[in-house]
Amino acid sequence: MDVKISDRMANINPSAIREMLKVTAMPNVISFAAGGPSPEEFPVKELAHLAAEIFETDSYTALQYSVTEGYAPLREITKDRIKNKFNIGREFDDLIIVSGGQQTISLATQCLVNEGDIVVCENPSFVGALNTFRAFNAKLTGVPMDENGMDITVLENILKTESRVKLIYTIPTFQNPTGVTMPLKRRQHLLELAEKYDVMILEDDPYYELRYSGEIVPTLKSMDETGRVIYSGSYSKTISPGMRIGYACGCKELIAKMTVAKQTQDVHTNAMFMMIVARYIEQFDFDAHIRECCEHYKVKRDFMLKKMEEKLTGYVKFTKPEGGLFIWCELPQEYSGFEFCKFAANYGVACVPGTTFDVAEDRNNNCFRLNFTIPSLEQIDKGIDIVADCLEKFIK
Amino acid sequence: MDVKISDRMANINPSAIREMLKVTAMPNVISFAAGGPSPEEFPVKELAHLAAEIFETDSYTALQYSVTEGYAPLREITKDRIKNKFNIGREFDDLIIVSGGQQTISLATQCLVNEGDIVVCENPSFVGALNTFRAFNAKLTGVPMDENGMDITVLENILKTESRVKLIYTIPTFQNPTGVTMPLKRRQHLLELAEKYDVMILEDDPYYELRYSGEIVPTLKSMDETGRVIYSGSYSKTISPGMRIGYACGCKELIAKMTVAKQTQDVHTNAMFMMIVARYIEQFDFDAHIRECCEHYKVKRDFMLKKMEEKLTGYVKFTKPEGGLFIWCELPQEYSGFEFCKFAANYGVACVPGTTFDVAEDRNNNCFRLNFTIPSLEQIDKGIDIVADCLEKFIK
Repeated sequence: MDVKISDRMANINPSAIREMLKVTAMPNVISFAAGGPSPEEFPVKELAHLAAEIFETDSYTALQYSVTEGYAPLREITKDRIKNKFNIGREFDDLIIVSGGQQTISLATQCLVNEGDIVVCENPSFVGALNTFRAFNAKLTGVPMDENGMDITVLENILKTESRVKLIYTIPTFQNPTGVTMPLKRRQHLLELAEKYDVMILEDDPYYELRYSGEIVPTLKSMDETGRVIYSGSYSKTISPGMRIGYACGCKELIAKMTVAKQTQDVHTNAMFMMIVARYIEQFDFDAHIRECCEHYKVKRDFMLKKMEEKLTGYVKFTKPEGGLFIWCELPQEYSGFEFCKFAANYGVACVPGTTFDVAEDRNNNCFRLNFTIPSLEQIDKGIDIVADCLEKFIK
Repeated sequence: MDVKISDRMANINPSAIREMLKVTAMPNVISFAAGGPSPEEFPVKELAHLAAEIFETDSYTALQYSVTEGYAPLREITKDRIKNKFNIGREFDDLIIVSGGQQTISLATQCLVNEGDIVVCENPSFVGALNTFRAFNAKLTGVPMDENGMDITVLENILKTESRVKLIYTIPTFQNPTGVTMPLKRRQHLLELAEKYDVMILEDDPYYELRYSGEIVPTLKSMDETGRVIYSGSYSKTISPGMRIGYACGCKELIAKMTVAKQTQDVHTNAMFMMIVARYIEQFDFDAHIRECCEHYKVKRDFMLKKMEEKLTGYVKFTKPEGGLFIWCELPQEYSGFEFCKFAANYGVACVPGTTFDVAEDRNNNCFRLNFTIPSLEQIDKGIDIVADCLEKFIK
């Protein structure tokens, strides 16, 4: 029989990242295609110790149904931490634990965006978010980026002319895929526009604490005095992505609705790992762990950028991110990033084509994304040599 | 500021079960309101052993991003097990690991049901499913039940007259909340109707292996030769609900789309627990564990039904389930189950009012649901005494 797929899902396809992951499963392939932290940074011993402790003393709580809002101690610890460190959260806000940052995007969209409403986002942007907006039959409008993030003049034009904009989706810090960070002034401007045109902002911020250089820029949420910003935070990049633990901070009314929505998706997040994360932050020095991650990633970023400057200059332009996981490369206008990634895959290097992150899914997109946190220095060295070789052959 | 909630979520409220759970958090309250397995049955030692083993030998896989379809060994083990034991799965089928059975309902609805499409379900039915259909702006049509499940004549009338029926949602075995099981003949009839009117069936089957008496009835999915049935299975009731591990078996095209949908919800299910469950089934005697659960639950069910016959006869009618977790009680027509549950809560017993499971959310619903797997024999003894007392006072 032919299954009739719903209108909202009919035209959504698996992302090209997944195709690239098939390439990376081949032996000896050097992968710049991933989007995670380095497994070398996982605090394995500490997590193992805590899991054993919880199985020993509190297995009932870890294995029975839990509450949808999340394990209460983890909610409190997270609230306190982001308030004290980043001034995130006001009296009117609340916080829910979610199954990874992706679920915040999904729940916020489910609770805010009607079919046909417009979601404005950076172009390019995180494909997991784009597909979520598509899956709720929202209309996507991309705003081009410069070295300071979303072009705010284009944004204002959209807000002026389109009445159905419901949500602005932004990754203001170490953006995925470009690595670009929006400066304070533009953030303030963005907040003013959201206020003026009465639009909500979804601030996706999984990389905020992974800064290797430059000055800290306040989050949008830390400047939100009206409840207009939904903040998506995550423990994926700083502890482990496999456990799927993130959190959303937003105004109480919205978080209450997102809780009802979460009941319809997965009832609650894995209970054992909510407990493990709570105890990890309580019993160990989480900030020191993050500092150590940053030191290691800084070495990799510096090495990769230096190598790219040596080898790729003249072929591609690329961003110089102050943190996060990604470097964004731009081929000359007439070349397709998608074709280049296919080409490079045959020589043993995996990158993610720009079309993946393109609001229009345009195969003529001339960009590709490189990750520098997972490959070793040796792999970066060898991998960028191969990329350089491929560029020489590819660009006639 | 006032947040404008989406149309799909505006009218969905937290379920009354949650209100009842607040009652159960009070000291000395006897709870018949839960919906989970007894924590005494959790295989804590085995799971703790496996977690330690995985942290020791395979922490990378457990803590890094995993694939959306689920940990490959768990998919294979699950496919083999349900094929060998229950004849579930054909050449045209595939299987995805999900974050609890709830996610199968959510993903199937997202991929099949357009806004305004009709979902037909048993009335009463599982509130988590009803809210999911509501959250996708589907129209819910309830079919009344008799002692053999969904009234098939009413169902056919609906299918005959309504052109937009997309999905039949059913819990054919030990239904939640009624405990009723649909006999083979009616299952065959249901399949024929689905075929005749070209409608998909979502078979929600979390309790199938928890049978304490009577004859095994084949699942709808085991009789599905065309790919019309989506089967929702779960490890929540037989291993642990807190870990959130379930699975969906359906035709390949649908499972592929549900995989894309899952990427938009939570990317993948908690990796460590997918590995733990795979190894648990491989290394331990899962069937023996389930047999043991059934022995214990049988004692509780038998004791509870006997006690109810002694104490409640004349006040309420109640079902006599052959398995699962629930007994369904019916007050005389003119009394509200909701009012009775509020009344009983004041005397220290928590039950779930029928309105929770009612397609129309009708507060005049004269029923309530009792769980017998979690309370101890002592609590059942005392709790049913209190229920009897309350009924005597409540029914004038």
